[in-house]
Amino acid sequence: MTSKKNDEIKKWVSTQVSSKRYLHIQGVVLTARKLAIRYGLSPDKAELAAWLHDCAKELPKTEMAAWIKKSPFKLDMDEIRIPALWHPHAGASIALNKWGIRDARLLDAIRRHTLGSPAMSSLAQVVFVADFIEPGRRFAGVELVRKAAKKSLTQAVLMKCSMTISHLLENNMKVHGRLLETWNSFLEQRNEN
Amino acid sequence: MTSKKNDEIKKWVSTQVSSKRYLHIQGVVLTARKLAIRYGLSPDKAELAAWLHDCAKELPKTEMAAWIKKSPFKLDMDEIRIPALWHPHAGASIALNKWGIRDARLLDAIRRHTLGSPAMSSLAQVVFVADFIEPGRRFAGVELVRKAAKKSLTQAVLMKCSMTISHLLENNMKVHGRLLETWNSFLEQRNEN
Repeated sequence: MTSKKNDEIKKWVSTQVSSKRYLHIQGVVLTARKLAIRYGLSPDKAELAAWLHDCAKELPKTEMAAWIKKSPFKLDMDEIRIPALWHPHAGASIALNKWGIRDARLLDAIRRHTLGSPAMSSLAQVVFVADFIEPGRRFAGVELVRKAAKKSLTQAVLMKCSMTISHLLENNMKVHGRLLETWNSFLEQRNEN
Repeated sequence: MTSKKNDEIKKWVSTQVSSKRYLHIQGVVLTARKLAIRYGLSPDKAELAAWLHDCAKELPKTEMAAWIKKSPFKLDMDEIRIPALWHPHAGASIALNKWGIRDARLLDAIRRHTLGSPAMSSLAQVVFVADFIEPGRRFAGVELVRKAAKKSLTQAVLMKCSMTISHLLENNMKVHGRLLETWNSFLEQRNEN
């Protein structure tokens, strides 16, 4: 990826989302770079995934659906029923089909940033966590997750899972099964180490 | 079911479990009868399911496995891996194979008392809730669930799901997916009404 193309992507993203969301995305970029460096991953790859992770979030449903249709990415039945869960897949399709990004780990990091996945890569974990703790996030407990993320990526993944599930339960909202699978799987990984 | 056979079952249950658990079972029987009456179900059927719901809980793993093998009940992969989740199915097998109980709803109420199930019957909901709020239960919030159960069985099912999931998350324990499915399904039912 040339830095010229990178610049082009950043500029384009700014045309796709509100200024509030663009600020969030910039925060995720910053945090993802730091986490990538901390955990020995490519900061440039983490940055690119972060720039694109929410690029489809404000598209009309029909456009998100069209991007997903154009991609090899499959949604499960519960994702299909909840349009709020379409943007990670639509964003990955844009990365692939509009920007020619073919790195499977990078595309997967975009696809998994909301629900995680039991087998997600370290790069995907970095984006999953960065999305939760970027400097613009203000919820109770965020500082604890920021601290944990400096020591253990697994622990930060677990905290995002449990805090998000608890928040959804408290607010009488449905919880997608994959978020729970991510919790169960990373808990098992942590206990094995 | 003759009352003689009922008495035989009660006596037998008392030989299968500790006195502490027998007290719990008596509490579930009492609560399940009350809830059944409140919601227009058979109190005798609810009582019988309550007597047997934990009858296998203190059996050695090999015996639980043998009872399950003798039954038509299938466990999913995650249940197979967690012996703590065997006793509802082993108990239903005992109800069927030892006591000749063939009422499918009654057997299902025993099988679903721990994790619930998205499509569980009202009888199963009664046992699921009674197990959580019987007079011996002392956890924070139990009074709220007792109050809710008088007004809405669905709401009490939801509260058992969310409180149990939260408790497991807080204690860094795995959560079986079916408990979350029960939450999601009853939430949808509640919102439809």
